[in-house]
Amino acid sequence: MSRYRAVLEYDGTEFLGFQRQARGRTVQGEVEAGLRRMGWAGKTIWGAGRTDTGVHAAGQVIAFDLDWAHGEPALLRALNANLPVDVSVRSVAEGAPEFHPRFAAKARRYRYTLYSAPARSALNARYAWHVWQPLAVPAMQRAADQLLGTHDFATFGTDPDEGGSTVRTVSVAHWSSRGPELTFDIQAEAFLYRMVRSIVGALKQVGAGEMTPAEFERVLHARDRSQCPPLAPAHGLCLMEVLYS
Amino acid sequence: MSRYRAVLEYDGTEFLGFQRQARGRTVQGEVEAGLRRMGWAGKTIWGAGRTDTGVHAAGQVIAFDLDWAHGEPALLRALNANLPVDVSVRSVAEGAPEFHPRFAAKARRYRYTLYSAPARSALNARYAWHVWQPLAVPAMQRAADQLLGTHDFATFGTDPDEGGSTVRTVSVAHWSSRGPELTFDIQAEAFLYRMVRSIVGALKQVGAGEMTPAEFERVLHARDRSQCPPLAPAHGLCLMEVLYS
Repeated sequence: MSRYRAVLEYDGTEFLGFQRQARGRTVQGEVEAGLRRMGWAGKTIWGAGRTDTGVHAAGQVIAFDLDWAHGEPALLRALNANLPVDVSVRSVAEGAPEFHPRFAAKARRYRYTLYSAPARSALNARYAWHVWQPLAVPAMQRAADQLLGTHDFATFGTDPDEGGSTVRTVSVAHWSSRGPELTFDIQAEAFLYRMVRSIVGALKQVGAGEMTPAEFERVLHARDRSQCPPLAPAHGLCLMEVLYS
Repeated sequence: MSRYRAVLEYDGTEFLGFQRQARGRTVQGEVEAGLRRMGWAGKTIWGAGRTDTGVHAAGQVIAFDLDWAHGEPALLRALNANLPVDVSVRSVAEGAPEFHPRFAAKARRYRYTLYSAPARSALNARYAWHVWQPLAVPAMQRAADQLLGTHDFATFGTDPDEGGSTVRTVSVAHWSSRGPELTFDIQAEAFLYRMVRSIVGALKQVGAGEMTPAEFERVLHARDRSQCPPLAPAHGLCLMEVLYS
């Protein structure tokens, strides 16, 4: 029996999020079902982060214990052959016996994609939030700069554990644009529940001129969830990478 | 009553192609249903090309006659509000009264996307053909160069009209790559039925070393459909642009 570490990609559209639930299709449920078809008799796999309903991942990290005698390339092929089309394994390798993808993670990087144009785009509908208003990217970047460093982000989310700390440290908060596609990359040691979508919802208001960067700063420091603008929708969000030391 | 010309984008996954059919969901059927909700009483819209089941479009061109008194920007908004999420209108403008998008077209440009990597990618599954073999792009380009100019492409397709000419003129046949994503752009005055998917199926064999560029040239000049390698799947294909003079 060895502990394996795998990088997972999924299209979140048809999933009720990562974490297994009593009812409904989840990423964890599908991966465990796929592993069972390969002879796995474990109780659970472990994931680095619990993405919400509709959120995608290009670099979710999971771990599981498995008896496998055929080498890692064959394990990669077997996993992809036993998973549905909207989940794939990018890589798999033996890890340390005690490796836990959530507790060992040093940072997570998410990307949020906006499609900024007057008319919506059918080919971008699945992975980007359509915003019809013109957006001022420099103002969005000025506001995003306020996020860098260690802050109490209570305005923008809650800790998964009730009463847990809402202080987090953000190391990257960067907008870039390519034609009508705007992407926001944000990296932190860890995130609060709904934090990225809350921040993007607010930054979109800054871009649309409904909030100034100074107001954004005030809202950030208010540490008051009721001052948070509406959430950005789930389908624009993608967990890009989980970083380990 | 004016004739309007619109550029249409669609995700072909859930469509039985462009052209209206007695049964089944088609792009033409959805656009006509949307127009009817806006008061349109016409018999048909006209399209530049009949994309197959599962084929996408970023630049299909359509025309329709409509009484509309509220200006083009409002027409664009109304169309997008009355179409399902997997069809969108990128632009709409009044055209010449006799404009027909198929007969007036001077050329069409298609793009075929391959995802070339040992492991499949869930986030690329919808718009790219996963090829697990390593592909030699220079050999694929050498073979593709043979397509340029006027040839009898009978190996690679049939004319929509029975007994029609299979001679076509190709002006662009270009591979490019960005990481694991390979795209093939091909432009011609007009295409045969299944021509792009047939060509890509053959070029993929060249890339995988199953056919040499010289064999590809022989197959092209054989003018024999039975010598055509298996078709590339529909979901990698996208009608990018229809060109007018």
